[in-house]
Amino acid sequence: MSQLLKKFKLQDMFLGAYEKLVMKQVIPYQEKALRDEIPDAEKSHAIENFKMAAQMLEQGSCDGEFYGMVFQDSDVAKWLEAAAYSLVHRRDKKLEKRMDELIALIGRAQQEDGYLNTYFTVKEQNRRWTDLQEAHELYCAGHMMEAAVAYYEATGKDSLLQIMRKMGDHIYQHFIVEKAEGYPGHPEIELALMRMYHATREEKYKELAAHFINVRGVDPDYFKKEAQSRGWTVWNMNADDREYAQNTAPVREQKEAVGHAVRAVYLYTGMAALAAETRDDSLKQACKNLWNNIVTKKMYVTGGIGSTCIGEAFTKDYDLPNDTVYAETCASIGLMFFAARMRELEMDSQYSDVMERALYNTVLAGMQLDGQRFFYVNPLEVLPGISGEAVTHKHALPQRPKWFGCACCPPNVARVLTSLAEYAWSETEEIIYSHLYIGGELDLEQEKGVKIRTETAYPYDGTVTYTMRTNKKKAEFTFAIRIPGWCKKGKIYINGDKVYSCKKGVRPSEQMKVWEEKGYLYIWKAFEEGDQITASFYMPVTKVYANTKIAADSGKVALMRGPLVYCVEGVDNDGDVLGLFIQKDSMSAIGEYEKNLLSGIVPIRVEGVRRKRTEELYSMKKPDDIPVEITAIPYYAWGNRGLNEMRVWLPEY
Amino acid sequence: MSQLLKKFKLQDMFLGAYEKLVMKQVIPYQEKALRDEIPDAEKSHAIENFKMAAQMLEQGSCDGEFYGMVFQDSDVAKWLEAAAYSLVHRRDKKLEKRMDELIALIGRAQQEDGYLNTYFTVKEQNRRWTDLQEAHELYCAGHMMEAAVAYYEATGKDSLLQIMRKMGDHIYQHFIVEKAEGYPGHPEIELALMRMYHATREEKYKELAAHFINVRGVDPDYFKKEAQSRGWTVWNMNADDREYAQNTAPVREQKEAVGHAVRAVYLYTGMAALAAETRDDSLKQACKNLWNNIVTKKMYVTGGIGSTCIGEAFTKDYDLPNDTVYAETCASIGLMFFAARMRELEMDSQYSDVMERALYNTVLAGMQLDGQRFFYVNPLEVLPGISGEAVTHKHALPQRPKWFGCACCPPNVARVLTSLAEYAWSETEEIIYSHLYIGGELDLEQEKGVKIRTETAYPYDGTVTYTMRTNKKKAEFTFAIRIPGWCKKGKIYINGDKVYSCKKGVRPSEQMKVWEEKGYLYIWKAFEEGDQITASFYMPVTKVYANTKIAADSGKVALMRGPLVYCVEGVDNDGDVLGLFIQKDSMSAIGEYEKNLLSGIVPIRVEGVRRKRTEELYSMKKPDDIPVEITAIPYYAWGNRGLNEMRVWLPEY
Repeated sequence: MSQLLKKFKLQDMFLGAYEKLVMKQVIPYQEKALRDEIPDAEKSHAIENFKMAAQMLEQGSCDGEFYGMVFQDSDVAKWLEAAAYSLVHRRDKKLEKRMDELIALIGRAQQEDGYLNTYFTVKEQNRRWTDLQEAHELYCAGHMMEAAVAYYEATGKDSLLQIMRKMGDHIYQHFIVEKAEGYPGHPEIELALMRMYHATREEKYKELAAHFINVRGVDPDYFKKEAQSRGWTVWNMNADDREYAQNTAPVREQKEAVGHAVRAVYLYTGMAALAAETRDDSLKQACKNLWNNIVTKKMYVTGGIGSTCIGEAFTKDYDLPNDTVYAETCASIGLMFFAARMRELEMDSQYSDVMERALYNTVLAGMQLDGQRFFYVNPLEVLPGISGEAVTHKHALPQRPKWFGCACCPPNVARVLTSLAEYAWSETEEIIYSHLYIGGELDLEQEKGVKIRTETAYPYDGTVTYTMRTNKKKAEFTFAIRIPGWCKKGKIYINGDKVYSCKKGVRPSEQMKVWEEKGYLYIWKAFEEGDQITASFYMPVTKVYANTKIAADSGKVALMRGPLVYCVEGVDNDGDVLGLFIQKDSMSAIGEYEKNLLSGIVPIRVEGVRRKRTEELYSMKKPDDIPVEITAIPYYAWGNRGLNEMRVWLPEY
Repeated sequence: MSQLLKKFKLQDMFLGAYEKLVMKQVIPYQEKALRDEIPDAEKSHAIENFKMAAQMLEQGSCDGEFYGMVFQDSDVAKWLEAAAYSLVHRRDKKLEKRMDELIALIGRAQQEDGYLNTYFTVKEQNRRWTDLQEAHELYCAGHMMEAAVAYYEATGKDSLLQIMRKMGDHIYQHFIVEKAEGYPGHPEIELALMRMYHATREEKYKELAAHFINVRGVDPDYFKKEAQSRGWTVWNMNADDREYAQNTAPVREQKEAVGHAVRAVYLYTGMAALAAETRDDSLKQACKNLWNNIVTKKMYVTGGIGSTCIGEAFTKDYDLPNDTVYAETCASIGLMFFAARMRELEMDSQYSDVMERALYNTVLAGMQLDGQRFFYVNPLEVLPGISGEAVTHKHALPQRPKWFGCACCPPNVARVLTSLAEYAWSETEEIIYSHLYIGGELDLEQEKGVKIRTETAYPYDGTVTYTMRTNKKKAEFTFAIRIPGWCKKGKIYINGDKVYSCKKGVRPSEQMKVWEEKGYLYIWKAFEEGDQITASFYMPVTKVYANTKIAADSGKVALMRGPLVYCVEGVDNDGDVLGLFIQKDSMSAIGEYEKNLLSGIVPIRVEGVRRKRTEELYSMKKPDDIPVEITAIPYYAWGNRGLNEMRVWLPEY
């Protein structure tokens, strides 16, 4: 993170509740899970693995056996990262003490040469770095580096950072100095090394990130050769599938997002971070090509990515089925990461538009409103009796399950929802960017002489007010506000004077410079105490039409309001969603804010018809269609009221 | 077959061309394939396997190795069966001689105790009957029994029949006398034994069919236990999946069609044949339950069955995706078999309705119009770039491939299209049933004193004329004509006098008895030379609506005319099908018969709109829709003009 997380005190009716929920519910639950203290749950053994590794190193042997996935260490890392962010919001000395103890344990599990990985320390001592394709060593290292940076920036303590520097140095020694071949099967270390570089300014880490990015796919058969020579395997994964792990070609030549979606966006995030640092145009162009391929051909309207459970992967352009979809929560989180790095490469509102789409829809939908259940897979159509049951739909569960043996998504949700400032804001020497609209106070007293107070009821209301607190002095800087892509009618005022409207553009002003560029309104001014910028983004219910090439959405529309994609659930519609049509020239209206419904939502009512259910499989009779008012709810809140038909895309009539 | 095949001389503009194509093209090609005489094709080795088995038995060893699938023998059997039917239509002495030689070879490959299977004779001598789950011994025996019956009935020669009686007796000895446990992994022998029983009147075969049907699923873990104890495997198939091979429960308790679709319908066909013979009500009821489940919840509008490539199987009720569908050609052929046996159990036009739907749509679509290429999988939506390419669509090829290593569908198509009389007609002592409307002459001189000449341009014209040739005598019998389920306006005349209309029912008549029952019009009369019955089934273009529970068809309509389901291909519609909508209150019209288009079709023109293609993935702008005339062609003829978008279900607008 930059220092923004520490400088922003989030006080937001909507996302604030999520941040609290994660801190109150998810982080403590996950800690218990990692410590195997949840009765009836599948054991994690993740912390136990570190104890065993420490014992192994200290005594030459250990009791018991390594347990869990080969990447079990990363669960500990992701928890540490989220917990570190939570300390920024709420000092919790007991938690911090337990984290320090855990970090000390991790230190004891580190080998003398810096190597850190419990699977290989406990179980496969002689096989480290021999199975880059499957064994996730670099992946686990990457996550622990992210945790190390987060804990250092949150607390100022560098205990974990020192451990991970030592591991980073070990990796440097192995891959750069000793010239070991290969690149990670699951990208992650690239983006993590760039974070290490930003935190430590140690050139080695940038060099190592560049190395892994530059060698990837240069030998597209690397994993195949490794598989043939290594003489062991974790899962016997197919080493011929070059798409799965994005090693079809050198990264600069890759134009299409392919393979495992999380791996893909983690890789692209690392590439974008490196390109932003090095101003490497060919890498930047590759990032733009891959970004464009995703957002113009392979993304669900909810910001979900990855169309198939087979390999949790991207498929082909415009192949976006709604019911058999994968759209893993982690993949949308990775898309947010990618977007955040892309806007460092090139400030353009499209990146934050996609980030917002992913966050407010798929990422939030990944978690039950009570913080106790999670989706990996985020379908856009749920068919009870088929979803979660048919062999083609086993993965697309109609209701959130509790916790997973492979617990990748929940801690990922936790670390995003405890570090929202990183996505909402960015700053350069001259400019403060407001990308997402989140209530709270941003303290830039030191750099810019200002505290900015944001007030909004977003995403249910499109008005956002920024109040400048300059402590009676003047503060000269540029404030940039993203004009959201979904907004067709919007106005921005300064102290009540309109300086911008979507339709007419910028209105010149004397005391300040105002200009619009790539989806942002820039305001340079010598800001004074109490100056108010008010953005008013008109937020009607809007019908969304999919590209005709998306076969699954033919003849259908989705409803959006502001950044929220809506969906229709059976529970609000007499138990029958599949028979509903939205009328072509329908009037739609927002309902009242219902604070007791689904933790508080604004439902949409839209005119439609209901086709009468019949017994016949196929009928030549014109069907009976009855006018009906359809109720839609925000997609993020679906699946909180039992088993239900659900649809994002409804046929138009 | 009954003797109907020999009595019916098919002279039909439409299906006659298929019969000829199969005889001229498919059967000779397949013979060459079986003899490994096709250059550049994957070798079959099927006849070579028989040679090796004979050598093994005669010399105790053989040169070379068994090659091909464990069920490679069945390719020879299916070819023999189709070739036998072809001899009925056209005496071909050279072909018959080659068949006699092949049968002699098969005889030489038979073991002394009657056992016949080249895989086990050549490769796995000590393992026969130990892997009923996977090894297809009973399946291959069943197909060879069908061939034996066909050859016997076609030529009067019982050489192959004797071989298969010996094999039947061997199976009886093993499973009944020696009380061996188990039942076939792939049903087929049940229906074949019933054919053997009808041809020979040997009670043993009926008893054996009943045995396999009755023990199936009584121990639902039979395959599991077998897998644990047998110590070898063919494919290491999952023995826990009870649905795959329909052994979830005793067959009388099975209510839902599950698992591998071809296995399912082959089993149900055997069950229905047995129930028709034994008047076993509980078995009949099970057949009806399974039938109803298929046709009211699991069948495509094209008569395709099996929604997923995973296990080539049925999934859940109403799960009928159009693009990732399996709908194997063989499964629809099996559905025709099942329908034929069901109407023996209970004369109801629904069975022939489904048979007709399967035949004129999926089965015919299985073959290229030139008889040289074949589909296993029959999709209802083809998306170039995705179909055949995305990992979820690999099986759903957008164009027919040449011949398959696993050559199951082409010979199955061949045996159906050379034995159409079996599906078109049936007779009891009193009644002659016309189920399908196929031109030609049915010679029932011997039994009923009549030859019936049928003239029609079906399926493109709904008029069917039956002329009675009684040789100047009177012939008293009942003639029954199916009133097709798709027909809402139809009239039937005798010698110009209307005796029936769909709307008003039967009009009483003096010289004959006319009544309607379960979709058939029955006419008892002392028929005289030249009596003419004319059925005039009004054949407008009709929109078909799917049950709202079929999510894939929401808001969409299909077009039918008579028994033909239509589809829309890019080549007729400016290369863009996905942007087309059919107007809600559209006028549609049939085009002229175009004899040079797709071997002669009647296209449909329907009013629609085309949505302009845009670059955006999602748009909030109301799309541009332009009125357009949509051209649809019969589904059976799709995929004959290169790579194309194709759709059966179009959104309504």
